[in-house]
Amino acid sequence: MLSTFINRASRSLKEKNSILCVGLDPALPKQRQRYIIPCKYLAKSSSAEDDDSEARLNFCLDMLEQVADFCAAAKMNEQYLRGFSSIQHRKLTNAVHERGLIAIYDCKLGDIRDTVESALFHLHNWGYDGITFNPLPGNMDEVVKIAHSYMPHIGVIALTLMSNPEAEVFMRNARIDSKPLYVKIAEDVETYNADGCVVGSTGYVTEDDIRIIRKIVGESRLLLIPGIGVQRGDAEKVVKVGGKNILVNVGRDIIYSTNPRAKAQEYYTVFNSLRKNVL
Amino acid sequence: MLSTFINRASRSLKEKNSILCVGLDPALPKQRQRYIIPCKYLAKSSSAEDDDSEARLNFCLDMLEQVADFCAAAKMNEQYLRGFSSIQHRKLTNAVHERGLIAIYDCKLGDIRDTVESALFHLHNWGYDGITFNPLPGNMDEVVKIAHSYMPHIGVIALTLMSNPEAEVFMRNARIDSKPLYVKIAEDVETYNADGCVVGSTGYVTEDDIRIIRKIVGESRLLLIPGIGVQRGDAEKVVKVGGKNILVNVGRDIIYSTNPRAKAQEYYTVFNSLRKNVL
Repeated sequence: MLSTFINRASRSLKEKNSILCVGLDPALPKQRQRYIIPCKYLAKSSSAEDDDSEARLNFCLDMLEQVADFCAAAKMNEQYLRGFSSIQHRKLTNAVHERGLIAIYDCKLGDIRDTVESALFHLHNWGYDGITFNPLPGNMDEVVKIAHSYMPHIGVIALTLMSNPEAEVFMRNARIDSKPLYVKIAEDVETYNADGCVVGSTGYVTEDDIRIIRKIVGESRLLLIPGIGVQRGDAEKVVKVGGKNILVNVGRDIIYSTNPRAKAQEYYTVFNSLRKNVL
Repeated sequence: MLSTFINRASRSLKEKNSILCVGLDPALPKQRQRYIIPCKYLAKSSSAEDDDSEARLNFCLDMLEQVADFCAAAKMNEQYLRGFSSIQHRKLTNAVHERGLIAIYDCKLGDIRDTVESALFHLHNWGYDGITFNPLPGNMDEVVKIAHSYMPHIGVIALTLMSNPEAEVFMRNARIDSKPLYVKIAEDVETYNADGCVVGSTGYVTEDDIRIIRKIVGESRLLLIPGIGVQRGDAEKVVKVGGKNILVNVGRDIIYSTNPRAKAQEYYTVFNSLRKNVL
């Protein structure tokens, strides 16, 4: 039986008529040169050591308000939300839910049993619907069981083929029982009833790879596709072979554009016209 | 050239005459039945949703005060510190440093380049000396470069053979170029000048495994060994073949004992007598 997470995700995709997932990854001006939150969000007293978590939260809330009409989900990468309190996380997930989106916490969780239990205790309190999961510790079975012991179920989306080019070394070139690692991971997703796969859309990932993964995990599970936009993944390839239940994540190209709402609408329109052509 | 992290770790090991690393993993009473922080730390107003981060911090600070004399390092698993603000993290790392220990953040970081940069920006601000790293994304080279672009360098300790039994599937049974994955990971640690390896000490990990890893990464790099204590790893095996630069992590068995100081001293004494016999 599929998890209640899958049902929520499917409903969101249908009701919003969108496969767009906005990546809410707020970076500070002292952190890098480009793709940063505008200075207007920062407190005047902000110091070099200050992590400006309230500023980052407010930026995320504003972005959400601007783009939510065109999105089915929001994905927050934990490396950009470091230092958020549980109250700040809850404000963010509440805002995501109020707009009919699902909230995915991209924390790439991968640890031993007791530790995973601790992680999910906190992430559940923070209000996230699903998480990304790193399968290297080999315990997908128990992680899914723990995540699905919550009601509603917490979705577990396993890193299967990541978007960075170096991911090929471990995820495609490595073998288990003469199968590529990503095939073994996809099989585990099916076997242990996880909720989906993270599948890149960039250079080294081929149409065939996506087709193989979809075939293994079945039509209902979610494919979460990062790498579109600044990372230049190929949306057409993904929509063509990814099937119905995909979420295509676009982060920087939307939230750091001069007009995030217009940019989100642009992706929404492009994705929907691609879907019309192939589905 | 070895990183400044390795120097700091070696100095700590020598000055404290200890290979013990205390695992500061504070779990709340509402989170599980056993191995929980005492109720005296919790605020009277604590609710089911409250993450009691101040209570968890105070517990960690007290534990540190009790056991620091016998430890060279403290390892905090991020899944138990979720919800800590940057100020709380800094209080904790300051206390660790004031007692001459190094602070390792066990966050199993594994992500694409830009995201890793964001993670290390925050973790550096929080004051951690080193992190654990999940090598599945295949980009150890760039992660080490980013971590070592900070001064002092942030240490990168790669998951090589984890302590949970299921880890065998991916970490030992999988092959890259006909080598077990853990051998490839250890080779990457040496090639890309990472700072050490996480190597379990439990059932499936053999003396030979540890010997192979040590041989590949050289004598100076750190082996961080979890799984002793509640997870029942074999300390003798580890000390015998691990070499000088090892840190043996004990978490629950110390911090949740009725007398943490005595328990830490007990491990300290046992480890040092084992070392005397084999080194």
